[in-house]
This record gives sequence, structure tokens and C-alpha cells, in this order.
Amino acid sequence: MELIVYLAGQIHDDWRDQLRKKAEERGLPLVFKGPQEDHDRSDDIGETIKGEQPTIEYRDQVASEMNNLRTRIWMSKADVVIALFGEKYRQWNTAMDAAVALQAGKPLILVRPPELIHPLKELGQRAQVVVETPDQALDALAYVLEQ
Amino acid sequence: MELIVYLAGQIHDDWRDQLRKKAEERGLPLVFKGPQEDHDRSDDIGETIKGEQPTIEYRDQVASEMNNLRTRIWMSKADVVIALFGEKYRQWNTAMDAAVALQAGKPLILVRPPELIHPLKELGQRAQVVVETPDQALDALAYVLEQ
Amino acid sequence: MELIVYLAGQIHDDWRDQLRKKAEERGLPLVFKGPQEDHDRSDDIGETIKGEQPTIEYRDQVASEMNNLRTRIWMSKADVVIALFGEKYRQWNTAMDAAVALQAGKPLILVRPPELIHPLKELGQRAQVVVETPDQALDALAYVLEQ
Amino acid sequence: MELIVYLAGQIHDDWRDQLRKKAEERGLPLVFKGPQEDHDRSDDIGETIKGEQPTIEYRDQVASEMNNLRTRIWMSKADVVIALFGEKYRQWNTAMDAAVALQAGKPLILVRPPELIHPLKELGQRAQVVVETPDQALDALAYVLEQ
Amino acid sequence: MELIVYLAGQIHDDWRDQLRKKAEERGLPLVFKGPQEDHDRSDDIGETIKGEQPTIEYRDQVASEMNNLRTRIWMSKADVVIALFGEKYRQWNTAMDAAVALQAGKPLILVRPPELIHPLKELGQRAQVVVETPDQALDALAYVLEQ
Amino acid sequence: MELIVYLAGQIHDDWRDQLRKKAEERGLPLVFKGPQEDHDRSDDIGETIKGEQPTIEYRDQVASEMNNLRTRIWMSKADVVIALFGEKYRQWNTAMDAAVALQAGKPLILVRPPELIHPLKELGQRAQVVVETPDQALDALAYVLEQ
Amino acid sequence: MELIVYLAGQIHDDWRDQLRKKAEERGLPLVFKGPQEDHDRSDDIGETIKGEQPTIEYRDQVASEMNNLRTRIWMSKADVVIALFGEKYRQWNTAMDAAVALQAGKPLILVRPPELIHPLKELGQRAQVVVETPDQALDALAYVLEQ
Amino acid sequence: MELIVYLAGQIHDDWRDQLRKKAEERGLPLVFKGPQEDHDRSDDIGETIKGEQPTIEYRDQVASEMNNLRTRIWMSKADVVIALFGEKYRQWNTAMDAAVALQAGKPLILVRPPELIHPLKELGQRAQVVVETPDQALDALAYVLEQ
Repeated sequence: MELIVYLAGQIHDDWRDQLRKKAEERGLPLVFKGPQEDHDRSDDIGETIKGEQPTIEYRDQVASEMNNLRTRIWMSKADVVIALFGEKYRQWNTAMDAAVALQAGKPLILVRPPELIHPLKELGQRAQVVVETPDQALDALAYVLEQ
Repeated sequence: MELIVYLAGQIHDDWRDQLRKKAEERGLPLVFKGPQEDHDRSDDIGETIKGEQPTIEYRDQVASEMNNLRTRIWMSKADVVIALFGEKYRQWNTAMDAAVALQAGKPLILVRPPELIHPLKELGQRAQVVVETPDQALDALAYVLEQ
Repeated sequence: MELIVYLAGQIHDDWRDQLRKKAEERGLPLVFKGPQEDHDRSDDIGETIKGEQPTIEYRDQVASEMNNLRTRIWMSKADVVIALFGEKYRQWNTAMDAAVALQAGKPLILVRPPELIHPLKELGQRAQVVVETPDQALDALAYVLEQ
Repeated sequence: MELIVYLAGQIHDDWRDQLRKKAEERGLPLVFKGPQEDHDRSDDIGETIKGEQPTIEYRDQVASEMNNLRTRIWMSKADVVIALFGEKYRQWNTAMDAAVALQAGKPLILVRPPELIHPLKELGQRAQVVVETPDQALDALAYVLEQ
Repeated sequence: MELIVYLAGQIHDDWRDQLRKKAEERGLPLVFKGPQEDHDRSDDIGETIKGEQPTIEYRDQVASEMNNLRTRIWMSKADVVIALFGEKYRQWNTAMDAAVALQAGKPLILVRPPELIHPLKELGQRAQVVVETPDQALDALAYVLEQ
Repeated sequence: MELIVYLAGQIHDDWRDQLRKKAEERGLPLVFKGPQEDHDRSDDIGETIKGEQPTIEYRDQVASEMNNLRTRIWMSKADVVIALFGEKYRQWNTAMDAAVALQAGKPLILVRPPELIHPLKELGQRAQVVVETPDQALDALAYVLEQ
Repeated sequence: MELIVYLAGQIHDDWRDQLRKKAEERGLPLVFKGPQEDHDRSDDIGETIKGEQPTIEYRDQVASEMNNLRTRIWMSKADVVIALFGEKYRQWNTAMDAAVALQAGKPLILVRPPELIHPLKELGQRAQVVVETPDQALDALAYVLEQ
Repeated sequence: MELIVYLAGQIHDDWRDQLRKKAEERGLPLVFKGPQEDHDRSDDIGETIKGEQPTIEYRDQVASEMNNLRTRIWMSKADVVIALFGEKYRQWNTAMDAAVALQAGKPLILVRPPELIHPLKELGQRAQVVVETPDQALDALAYVLEQ
């Protein structure tokens, strides 16, 4: 039985690809879904589909229509959500996806470096699992799939 | 008929008090609830109740037990949620509260300065109302209560 | 025990006021809520609160933020929804409110003239009660409150 | 992973067939469902199955029993709903299906020409995506399915 | 704290009045709601409000619109449901109300004479409490309200 | 795409087998589930599994544990429920299953002879489709599966 | 605004009375509900209401009908649940009430002595707050009610 | 059609293996899921993944993060839950899993020896089926799968 995993979090490095590769190497029956990982395409997608908008604000809004469509469809199909926070970005989207998972009753695995313990303490306290690296998140899922 | 309003967001200035005062001046039947506004008390509350913890991480965790208890009780009673973001803080708690409201089907009023349009674009696109000042949020609630 | 009634439907005549008056005359413990009935205020409210918008489309969007906030808050508190359709207007808002009530499990009373039987047949078939005048809707609620 | 798309909206032209064909040409894993597209069959189906009814109103009602059965079954299986409005018809069914999707938490893609911005402004403000052509709706779904 | 009790079941004798009287004598803070108890009014109410119908079947249908409106409103406000079955009537309405309570997660108290144990065994097995007389149902509620 | 259909109703004739056969003949992708159709096995199953019980009442109760287990599992997987009532039996189980479907938001097809219009009027008014024969119920499902 | 608190847990000492008294002394607007605290009455209540049963097992079952009725009614009205575990008893009821609260989305405050950390570790990890004494639970609620 | 069965309960003997073997011998289309059955691995898993913790309490907590992740994922996919209690262990986890199933509306089969009738009476009264051996639980599922 495959599990569907939604990968919320930053799209500025290749952590998703690495996770996919490692899961495959370990033979774990996991299907990963997530946001658009090409940052420019993510910012442009609204105007790409709907045409130029009158202001920057509305350009952002139409991009978000498409990004939120994507997130909502895959989140609703996910069995579990991994949300990764890093030092560099504000990542309110990640917090949003994580909290949507909480309220929808989907188990949340929070990944964050030790430096973020304090600012993420409320989210961490409500997550099902809190770890520091994506590898540990994969270990947790491997444990679910054991035996 | 009174409406219960949960005020998510930063606890570093007195925006909640000002909102309460203005609502009272306008005679609006609004009851405001929110997180602990005394920052030190909010950080200390876990150890105040449960005693000293072995590490900083666990000190944060026990504080969050209490803060999340408070948030969950009042959020579940709220008719509407106002979430205010400012420039200075990371405010993942605010994003968490806002997204819990979204997923729970409670109308969300997002308050954020123009500088935050881009990083908050996905949350903004799913909020019911997006404004720039707490006064505008109050105007929106006054409109709900008209006639 | 009071019942809260949401009055969806056109805002171009005074059917809500007449209903309120008749309910009062009959001594029925009903509290009526509904959309903004001042049409111009309803169209202007977005720019009134948020300021001028770059296009007509966005002017409409910000007005709808406020109108939908109002509708969602009162609909979520309503025990029953009355949706009135007339010949003159397209009234997609009325259909939207009626269907939200259906899906939320709130009983829907549909009021429509005989001329609209055919175009409203699917909505009528799923409504709890279908009548032709607001007075009949009030009769139905009076029956609920009997003895 | 296939996505199931419910196509709400007018049944007077072949927009669904065109959408199916284009999705196939682009190799998108989409399964489309929707209402009965043969208008006469849709109006006759109640009497076809249940026999002649005493009045026009009841003829319409029994047709709606069957049409609503169809809509409810496929809507409940859909991952996403596209609702298309055109100038010519009143399309309260489309508004009903769209609002059922909203309240059920299913992402809604609203397709409407610019002329309908104003009358559909409240529905548009709550939709996940608003576009002007079915092709743009398909673009949005293609974006969801990317990588 | 008052509890709201919905009294489903036959309307051919005065068991509801007796229950109300006994609850009052015992000083129990119970508010009783239920269907229309005047049988003729219950059968006539559709035509009383909507006018004469073309067939007996449709006369029954319009009466049910009103009776179901009443039941749905009070059932949705009830804290607990008492469903009474007797020997004389088929009482499919009672079974319907009882099962709606089951599926809505509302505690159900089933009252039935020993002769009905076998035909009501599946419903009885899913009820929260099964007794043989309305007085025993009242005893059960009094126990809930103790201390 | 297959649809799962739960067949509630009497187990004293072979209407389910006939329906299965006809569906197969028409090539309809329907999977039928339902209660135990061997009446004696249904009454004995509790004692068959759990051993002899001290009274008739408890014999019935343990049988119902098993019958309700079966019904709950298959009902929860069903896309649509057909409930058939006949003249001869009290069939409170059928009414229970039908109402569970109503409250769970699953479309209900009610099958009943004209003689039962009056006693089943409230259930009929809330069903999605009401017909007089199982063949008509199959016609309705065939319509859902068309095109 | 009063909060309703359900007090799950052992009924063999007077911890609930002490909690009520302390809450009153501190002026906290809390309404406490809970199971029957008179142990013998709790064990006898089924036979008291329904008469003598054929076996000990069925005596226990009928008592549980009444005890579960009580628990379900007050739990469904509670804003927060306190579950207290002690060393002496098995208290599967307490675990049941605690887990019902978890799944219903109601915040759970778990009270348990340090000796029970290991056997209660899974429940503790999902509770909102974990403390060692009822006084600490009251402190947590007082914190919720501050300012 | 396969059914997914979650096996809650003690992990100190091989009852799950025996059940799997017997189901296979009988050709029943059942997929069994459950907690980690290697007791030491279950206790160590938190520190195995997250590293050494400062106290025993926190060691237990991190183990529970992983064990609860596993339980929540498989419970949410289960069609039915079997919860087995034995004499030797406190098994609050089993009670927790059983009650989560109750509140989630999933049918629960409770397996317990006669000695535990009294302490488990409230849980037993709310379970769908109560038996004394895992073989009887399998019989009940076989009955569900018959014809």
C-alpha cells in the first residue's frame, strides 16, 4: 500500500529530489507531491495563464490562485505532510500548509534546525513528529512502513 | 447578537487594546479573545506551571502546551479570526492560527502592510478579507453588523 | 427559543422588511439576518474600506470580500435559510447561498414564482420546502414553532 | 495519479468534448464527469423512468430527481470542479454546483466571460481560480500536474 | 444548563404531554421538542400552506416538506433524542429520526415494548439506551443531570 | 469507474439477485453489497459466533452486533444506497439504513409500491430519487453512468 | 464567558469536589461536568432503571448504557476535557474519554503521576497539556482565562 | 474488495501473526495493519531517529511521536478496528485506539476475556461487536465478507 506524502516548505534547494532519491533507494512505497519547485514559474504562473495584471499585488494574487489550487488538490490526497523550515526564508506558506494539515487531522512531520526551536515552538508542539533533517522524516516514514 | 473575534498576531505592541477601545467607542457588539499578550509570561508559563525543564527546547515545549491550549479553546469559539502580520517578526504562530481558521471554515481577515504582499500572497489569496490596518478590519466587522 | 433565519435573495425591494414586520406581528421568535440591503453601499463597500482599485474587476472583488464576510458569518449562525428568487435579476448570489445551505446541512426554504419552476428545478428538488411567496415561508416557520 | 474533474455548466454547446479532446492531446491524466449533456434527455428523464406526471411542475421535479442523483454521485468523487458560465442562460444549476463545491471544500475553477464579472463577483471571490476560457482552466490543471 | 430533547415517535396518544408534566414535577431542566402532534394538521399542512395538489401523492409530499422542516430544525438543536415505538403503527418516521440521530452522533434513547425486541433489534443494538417505557427514559435523563 | 451500491431492504425474496443479474446483462459497472440474505443465518449469527445467550433479547442483540457490523462496513464504502420497502414486513432496518444514508450525505434511492406512499411520505420527501420498482432504480443508475 | 470542563477519571476520591472548590475560590468562570461519582450508584444504575438482568455481564452492560449516555451528553458540550489517571485503578474509561476528546478535536489536559509516564506515553504525546496534579490543570485553565 | 483491519492491543505475544495466518488459510481478503510489534524497537525508536534525550520522560515522548505517527496513518486508512485486551497489561494504548475508532465512526470489534467484562463495560457497550477471542473477531469479519 502506497502512502502519499505532501512536501511543504522552501523551494530554493533540492531537498525534495534528494528525498525522492533516498526513498527509492530504500524501496519505500512513497509517492511525493508538493508545490511548484521552479521559483520563477511559481511567481509567473498567474500571468502566464491569465495575462498581465494591473499591479504587482494582483500579479501576486493570480499566481497564488494557481499555486493554492495545486496545494489544495495534493494536500487533500495526502496521507501525511512533511513541512520543512530553514533559516533563510520567512516561509509563511510552509506554516500555512502545516496548519492546514493539523486542522484537517493529517499527521504532520515538522523538520527544522535547532535554531528555529523557539520561533516554531507552538507549531512544533502540535506536530505529530518533530525532527531536524529530512532524513529523519524519512526514517519516521520507514518505521511506519515496517513489518 | 455578539460576535466572538479571535485576534491572532504579534504580541509586541498594543494593537489589540486599541482595537478593543475603538470597538467600544463605536458600540460594536464584539468580544475579543487572543493569545497571552505579556511576552515574558507567555514564554515562562510552562515552567511556571510545570516546573523547571531539562533543556531550553523542553522549556519552549511546555510553554507551548499552555499557549496552544489557550489558542485552541478561544479559536474554537470564535466566529471570525483577524490575523495581523507586521514587518518585524517571523510570526509563524500567526500563520498557523490563520491557516487553522481557513481549514476550520472560519472567515479570516488578514491584516498586513503592503511590504508583505509578496511573502503572504498565498495566505492572502485564501483569506476572506485582506486589509492593511486593524481599523480596516474593524470597518469590515462593522459592515457585517450594519442594519 | 429563538431561531436565526438567513434571508438570501434580491436586495432590490423591501421583502425583508415586510417579513420582519409580519413575524413581529405574529409574535414569532425569529431573528432575521441577511446581506447588505443598500445596493450602492454593497457595491461600494470594498473601495470604501480599502480605497480605490485599479480596475472595475478588482473594485468588484474587494466589494465581494466584504459581502462574503457578512454572508459567511451570518449563514454559519443560521438555523434555517430562506432564498427568494424573482423574475428580474440573475441572482447567482442567491443560488450560491442556497447551495451553501444545502451542503452545510441547513434546511433551505426556496421562494420562487411559478415562472421559475423550470430553471430552478434542480435547486427546488433539493430544497427542504418550496413555496411561491415569502408569506408562505413564514407560515412554514410558524408551523415549526407551533406548540 | 488521475484526477477526477466535474464539469458544471451549460449543456448547450460542446465545450466539454473540446476539453476532453485537448486534455487527451496534452496527455493529462484527467477523468471528466458532468451532467447529462443531451438537453431533451435531461428534461425527459424523470417521465422516461417514472412515467407521466400530473403537472409540468412535477414533470420537472422528477427529472431533477435523476439529474441531481447524477450530479451528487460524480461531485462527491471529484477532486476539483470547473464551473462554466456563459452569457445566454440563467444557469442557476451551475451556481448551485459551484457553491456545493465551495462548501464541500473542493477547489473550484470558475470560467466566465468578462461581461459576467459583476453579477458573479461574490462567487468569483470565493472560487480558487477564476479564468475566462476553458483552455485556461485546463492550463491551471496542467500546472497542478507538472513534475 | 438546560438539555434539549427531541421526542420522535407516534403522535396518536399523549405520551409527550405526560413526559413534559413528569419532567416538570421532578424539576428537571429539560426542553422538549418534537413533531406536530395534531395528526390532521400534520397531514393537511402542505395544502394549508401551498394550496391544493393534483394527486394524493403530491398532497403527501407537500405535507412532508413542512414536517421534515420542523424535524430537521429541532433535531439539529437537540442534545439527545428519544424515539418511542408502539405496537400499533408502522412508524417509519420514528425509525428515520432515530437513525438520523445515530449518524449525527447524537445519543439515542430507544423506548419500545418487549414485543418489538426482535423487529427492532438492529436499531436497539446501536441506540445508546434501550428501555420499555417513557418513564425509564426520563429516569435515564435524570441520571445524566444528577449532582 | 465502478460505483458501489448498498441494497437495503427486505431479505425475503430474491430482488437483489435479480438486480445483480440485470445490471450484468446491461453491462453496468456496479458492485452490489448488502445485508446477509439468508434469514436464518442472520438471526443465528450472534449465537453461532458468541455461543448461546441467556434470553431471547440477548440472542437478538448479539445477532445484531454482527449484522450491524456488516451493514456499517459496506454502507461506509457505498456511493449510493437503494432502500426497498414492501407491503409485508415492518422493515425498520430498511428505514434505519435509509436514514443513515440521508444523514451521511449519500444519495438515497427509495423503492416502494404506491400503497406505501402515505406511511413513507417523510422518508420519500428526503430521498434523492423515489421509484416503485427495482428496475426503475437500475434505470436511474444507468442514467448516472451514461456517456 | 463560561467554559465547560469535563472531568474524566477515577471516581474513588474527591478530586472533583476539590477542583470545584478551588475554581470557585479563584473566581474562575468554569462549569464542571463529569461521570456519576457515587460508585455503587454507577454500577447499579442499569438495573435500577431497567430491572434485574439475567447475568452479571448484562448487568454491567445496562449500567454502561446509562453511564455512557451521561458521558456522551456532557462531553459533547465540553470546551475542554481533563483526564486524571492514578496508580490504583485500571481506568480504561478514562483512556476512552481522553481519546474521544482527541478525536473530536477537543483540547485534552492529561493529569498523571510521574510513575505513569511510561504506560501513558502515547496518550500523553497527543494530549494538549500534560501535568501531574489537578491544581496544575486548574492553573492551565486560569491562564486561558487571563486578561 | 479488500478490507483494511487495524489490530490494536498488546504486542507481547503473537496474536497478530496467528490472525494473519488464519485469515490467509480461510482466503479472506483482509489486509492487517497495526503498531510496531517489536517491543524494544517501539521503546527505542524515538532515540534511534532523534538521538539521546535528556530524561526518561522525554525518551518516552520521542518514542511516542513515532508510534503515534504509525498508528494515526494506518488507523485513518482502516475500515474496521480490532482491539484486544488481555489480563496482564494496562493497555491504555489499546483503549486509546479503540476510542479513537469509536469517535471516528469506524466499527470497533472488542476482544477481551470474561474477567475483563466489568472494567471494560463502558467501552464494550459502545463497541460494535464484543467477543472473547481473536478467532471470533475473524468469524465476524468472515460474516461481513460472505456472499
